[in-house]
Amino acid sequence: MSYATEERVAVLGAAGAIGSNLAQSLLQLDVTGDVRMYDPYEAGLEGAAEEIYHCGFAGADVTWTASLPEALDGASYIITSGGAPRREGMTREDLRRDNSLIAKDLGIAIKKHCPELKLLVVIFNPADITGLTSLVHSGLPPSNVTTLAALDSTRLQTALAQRFGVRQDKVTGCRTYGGHGEKMAIFKGTIKIDGKPLTDYLREGFLSPEDWQEIQEHTQGGGARIIKLRGRSSFQSPAHLSARMVKAVAEGSDFEWPCGAYITDGDYAGVMMAADTSLGKTGVRYRIPDGDAEDLAALKDSHAHLVSLRDQTIADGILPPLNEWKRHNSNL
Amino acid sequence: MSYATEERVAVLGAAGAIGSNLAQSLLQLDVTGDVRMYDPYEAGLEGAAEEIYHCGFAGADVTWTASLPEALDGASYIITSGGAPRREGMTREDLRRDNSLIAKDLGIAIKKHCPELKLLVVIFNPADITGLTSLVHSGLPPSNVTTLAALDSTRLQTALAQRFGVRQDKVTGCRTYGGHGEKMAIFKGTIKIDGKPLTDYLREGFLSPEDWQEIQEHTQGGGARIIKLRGRSSFQSPAHLSARMVKAVAEGSDFEWPCGAYITDGDYAGVMMAADTSLGKTGVRYRIPDGDAEDLAALKDSHAHLVSLRDQTIADGILPPLNEWKRHNSNL
Repeated sequence: MSYATEERVAVLGAAGAIGSNLAQSLLQLDVTGDVRMYDPYEAGLEGAAEEIYHCGFAGADVTWTASLPEALDGASYIITSGGAPRREGMTREDLRRDNSLIAKDLGIAIKKHCPELKLLVVIFNPADITGLTSLVHSGLPPSNVTTLAALDSTRLQTALAQRFGVRQDKVTGCRTYGGHGEKMAIFKGTIKIDGKPLTDYLREGFLSPEDWQEIQEHTQGGGARIIKLRGRSSFQSPAHLSARMVKAVAEGSDFEWPCGAYITDGDYAGVMMAADTSLGKTGVRYRIPDGDAEDLAALKDSHAHLVSLRDQTIADGILPPLNEWKRHNSNL
Repeated sequence: MSYATEERVAVLGAAGAIGSNLAQSLLQLDVTGDVRMYDPYEAGLEGAAEEIYHCGFAGADVTWTASLPEALDGASYIITSGGAPRREGMTREDLRRDNSLIAKDLGIAIKKHCPELKLLVVIFNPADITGLTSLVHSGLPPSNVTTLAALDSTRLQTALAQRFGVRQDKVTGCRTYGGHGEKMAIFKGTIKIDGKPLTDYLREGFLSPEDWQEIQEHTQGGGARIIKLRGRSSFQSPAHLSARMVKAVAEGSDFEWPCGAYITDGDYAGVMMAADTSLGKTGVRYRIPDGDAEDLAALKDSHAHLVSLRDQTIADGILPPLNEWKRHNSNL
């Protein structure tokens, strides 16, 4: 058995649907054999760990604990889905306050227990805000904190494949940027279907503006749609994609989808948002996405929404005022 | 992306916890990109399929259908968890009648829609009986029908690793034979902990007969324990292990755990049970396990239990009388 790393990945929220799938995915995808599962709900956690043991993974050393310090000590990577889940009818933003508090506590605990952490992947919603809150309080460099953002792009890919009746991976270059949520910015310029640019299909009228609008709305409602169909929020795809993000950093390969990145300067500075990222041994690097006027307007709009969520979180006292961030995190 | 096979694996019961995890596991373990998901519960099935699409697997061609014929046409492999699930307090045997009927219908449908099937893996309980019932009605050669039996052995491995405080894969040679259920036969002779035979630990008194008895009971109650801890029956480990069984047959590699096999002759003939099996391109091959007098007595006991379940299923009219099996399946 050969894993991408021998270092430890801690999975927070491991009794839950995402977390328990994550533990399995990390092992199935050969990311690491050293998985530490954490959840405050001990019975469910033990049950989830037993399931992983019963898979009989060769070369694995899976441990579980209901103590957060014990979960963080010795972790090189953390993936956390350990927030409150989104339920039917709730928007991601409804969850902001409660989950930001959890993210703040996590950041403080990381600073104490694993300040050398190589990557923190925050999944729980609104991930842009919970990721940012963890980053500010953790003291980690921005390159070492990211959020799961890829799901919007894979949902866009899915919707386009279904609309054009082609195999999913015949649709390439799907990229959504900015916030993960109803205000995501869907960029057209890089998308190709069977090698032909989406913009050509639009210009030639093969795809009407109304159809394109519908596909975008379908993408934006992708999470809510899963809840409606399955009676529960999505858990398999977030687990799979975030396990692959850690694998990319652990083995120094790239990851083809946008990830959340803290924007250090320029027009979009001071938020965490999905950008034109690449992953690798040094964590996450970003470029500000390029697009046409419409795409960039959507990104500006999405960014403004994130700023308002961030400022609300500052007003709540969960994030410090902007001018105090550097005091909490000298890497900012 | 390179998969073990380009042929289709149909997952029956794909809206359920095991089935949806199976679709993901088949792709994460690089078994096949051609996954067809089937379930009569269409909304849940679509939701489960969307989750798989949102993973964005490269080279995958995942399809879903609520029509069983459409699911079976063109399938080279089938894994089915599509029975009624076991709920708290139920034994596997409680499920026998209902699930045997489902297994019979499946066998008849296989005969009609995919008589060239390379492997059928039956997961739903009691798997020995549902697997046997599908085999008899399908007309398939016995080598092409198996059941998930490995879970008992991995549970035994887990329990021993926990008792001895060693990493799980330091415990080797765990084998349970006969029925998958409370009457499984746990064989001692092949088990080693950190290279030293379990029988040595027993002889030297390092493991008392009472402790060994407790470990066996813990193993036998492994499924019920998951239900108690998680509030649901196990689904990750059965999905993982059965995906690996298909991978072994598809790529012609072996699978290290016991599988269910139809016993063609000798003392144990006429049932499907966990035996000393190997997998490979030609399906499942078996040898009757060898052990000490105690182990063999347990196997005999387990076999007798399976015979009584089988005969009850014959009495119910779901399996034909023994002397008519050849008429339903010329390969028997």
